[in-house]
Amino acid sequence: MSLITPPLEPGRKHVIVIGGGFAGLTAAKELARSASLYVTLLDQRNHHLFQPLLYQVATAGLRPSDVAVPIRAQFTGVPNVSVHLAQVRQVNLQERWVEAGEDGREVRVGYDYLVLACGAQHSYFGRNDWEPFAPGLKTLEQATEIRRRILSAFELAENELDPERQRALLNFVVVGGGPTGVELAGAIADIARTVLVRDFRRINPFSARVVLVEAGPRLLPAFSEELSQRATRDLMELGVEVRTSARVTGVDAEGVQLGDERIVARSVFWGAGVEAARLTRVLGVELDRAGRVKVTGDLSIPGFPEAFAVGDVAHIEVEGQVIPGLAPAAIQSGKLAARNITRSVEGKPREAFRYRDKGSMATIGKHRAIAQTGALKLTGFIAWLAWLFIHVLYLIGFKNRVTVFLEWTWSYLFSKRGARLITQQDWRT
Amino acid sequence: MSLITPPLEPGRKHVIVIGGGFAGLTAAKELARSASLYVTLLDQRNHHLFQPLLYQVATAGLRPSDVAVPIRAQFTGVPNVSVHLAQVRQVNLQERWVEAGEDGREVRVGYDYLVLACGAQHSYFGRNDWEPFAPGLKTLEQATEIRRRILSAFELAENELDPERQRALLNFVVVGGGPTGVELAGAIADIARTVLVRDFRRINPFSARVVLVEAGPRLLPAFSEELSQRATRDLMELGVEVRTSARVTGVDAEGVQLGDERIVARSVFWGAGVEAARLTRVLGVELDRAGRVKVTGDLSIPGFPEAFAVGDVAHIEVEGQVIPGLAPAAIQSGKLAARNITRSVEGKPREAFRYRDKGSMATIGKHRAIAQTGALKLTGFIAWLAWLFIHVLYLIGFKNRVTVFLEWTWSYLFSKRGARLITQQDWRT
Repeated sequence: MSLITPPLEPGRKHVIVIGGGFAGLTAAKELARSASLYVTLLDQRNHHLFQPLLYQVATAGLRPSDVAVPIRAQFTGVPNVSVHLAQVRQVNLQERWVEAGEDGREVRVGYDYLVLACGAQHSYFGRNDWEPFAPGLKTLEQATEIRRRILSAFELAENELDPERQRALLNFVVVGGGPTGVELAGAIADIARTVLVRDFRRINPFSARVVLVEAGPRLLPAFSEELSQRATRDLMELGVEVRTSARVTGVDAEGVQLGDERIVARSVFWGAGVEAARLTRVLGVELDRAGRVKVTGDLSIPGFPEAFAVGDVAHIEVEGQVIPGLAPAAIQSGKLAARNITRSVEGKPREAFRYRDKGSMATIGKHRAIAQTGALKLTGFIAWLAWLFIHVLYLIGFKNRVTVFLEWTWSYLFSKRGARLITQQDWRT
Repeated sequence: MSLITPPLEPGRKHVIVIGGGFAGLTAAKELARSASLYVTLLDQRNHHLFQPLLYQVATAGLRPSDVAVPIRAQFTGVPNVSVHLAQVRQVNLQERWVEAGEDGREVRVGYDYLVLACGAQHSYFGRNDWEPFAPGLKTLEQATEIRRRILSAFELAENELDPERQRALLNFVVVGGGPTGVELAGAIADIARTVLVRDFRRINPFSARVVLVEAGPRLLPAFSEELSQRATRDLMELGVEVRTSARVTGVDAEGVQLGDERIVARSVFWGAGVEAARLTRVLGVELDRAGRVKVTGDLSIPGFPEAFAVGDVAHIEVEGQVIPGLAPAAIQSGKLAARNITRSVEGKPREAFRYRDKGSMATIGKHRAIAQTGALKLTGFIAWLAWLFIHVLYLIGFKNRVTVFLEWTWSYLFSKRGARLITQQDWRT
């Protein structure tokens, strides 16, 4: 296998960025501003995903293309960035190369600097056999699969003659009381009660049962106790059953086991745990329990000052506090790693990472939310407006901003959903 | 197995419509206007598809939800229509029932009247083993698969170090010189030359080779010789290689065989033949060579005056002419079958089908088309404007009209494509 590098002009340094999420994309854009760098951005998907809105794709509120943009198109006219659709198989920090590509056709590419930004995935806490029955919500494919399962459940229930099977089809269990679980559960309850309720003849979608299961004592532990209570109340008003201090001990095709209790449900969705992308395991460096790379104050990997880890794949501690896996943290860390590379190339000292907490938000159903920034706490409709404004603002691409805004206006005015398509996995006739 | 029928009020007749395409949807809407009828609409997909624009989904110009609407949502507030997502397995014309549902859980439903509108699919002329290498373009899933293959081919070519493999990745073969093949080939050439050309570093998408293969002596045989020539010239200007009188004798993962000639291409798409949905084979009635049901003048199936076949699944002859498989013909036949059912229930005599030829159109690339209605023939930009106007007008759903119009305006102004997403078939991590 040959080691290749892009045709670099003399004096130019080669930076490999792995991952086109918030952290990687921000890093690549920042790095591209330096004419003395050439950036190779690798991602196993061709699109950057705006993950905070993914639950809306899963619940037929937005279309996949509303929340995703081609990574390649972000660098149109930027000559010193090259984007490659490639799965990274191996990273050798000692010899400074990355191996990517399909089986038997791997290619090794050397680097001067590395930015590891390959993100996180759902963790089933060692029970990966639950995944087929309880998909998580991290990729567009998973969102489309969850959408297919939700909409198909109502369709199958409409056809079902056996009342018991019909009830199982109209039971939905969401595991995990963090923002993903809360938003997903709220949106399922909402779609059943406001959108689908008019369109069925035999079943009443209003009777759908949505159960949100959280192992800890309360929902949304990252928020204040008060906001967490408010979110719980809002969810219950939407008809969601909230089960805290309830640990899932089994998941299968027919439902969920909570210790001795059985919840029969044909649809189970997983938003419980996250762990770093599997790639971290090949690095041979210190990881935390979630598989994240522990980094130094300048975000480089200990012992490898030219290699950085940022975003959800990094375990970043500032003054004893672990930085949360949120989009603003990913953007800030991606930016600082890029700046530190530029500063190193320019012979300047590096900067330490400082986290500006932009707060957290979560929506509950159609027009309620909770939001918290420092001492400021918002709830209800006002919080929802703030959520809406910030999410439209931070969406990448002018066009996505316009279409998402139109889509939301439309759905707000008419209680319709723009993306109620069930598409099969197999395209063959 | 029990025979079920919906809870009918006394005197109400039960009509089953199989298929929610142009013909079936039109029939169901027309039938719903009669209070003495109850309509059950069965389709194996939950959406009505606007097939004339499907090639734009395949070439990243439109999103799946732009060209599809939930069938169910078409009957919101219509109490005498019930929609079911169901695959019909068996039709018994003698005993007047339909069997649908999953394996082992089939249900038989009785009817007073039947409208068979289950459409057509691609025909590989007995070589179904070619399908994995050359997907057709009849469903949303196929469109997404073709999109994935087109976009992935460019991505893989960008990564490829071997020049020969790179060339194979940038070769595209479209089989079939009818409207589907012409529109697909033109759009692939267009996307390579205007959209993708700015976004790659190693390959030049402009060098992509698009070959359109037609077995007959000329493209678009349904159009006049003159328009066919014009379309050929327009395609060649876009860079498409047009190969007429060329019969495909083999398709595999590496390319296409045309007799002694080999075209190496990693992407092959199929738009060559159509045949009726397989369901017609279980009917035990006379079919034509394409598997279509031969119907009488009032569109009923010979010997079964209460059963009708309409749209692409029907072989309809008027004054010795076979009606073409176009959307207007499907709509007209669906409407007449519904009217004849209503007239029968009201004790009135049936009407014979008369075909109003609304002409045909095909686009070539981004802003050219050909159109033909009776003596009127249009070409170039004017024809494209007419095509655009008519397609936006006939799209179902106000919202789809708006979004498609905005999408086209955007792409016309900026040469961008809104739906350049590659999504995998498997959702698992």
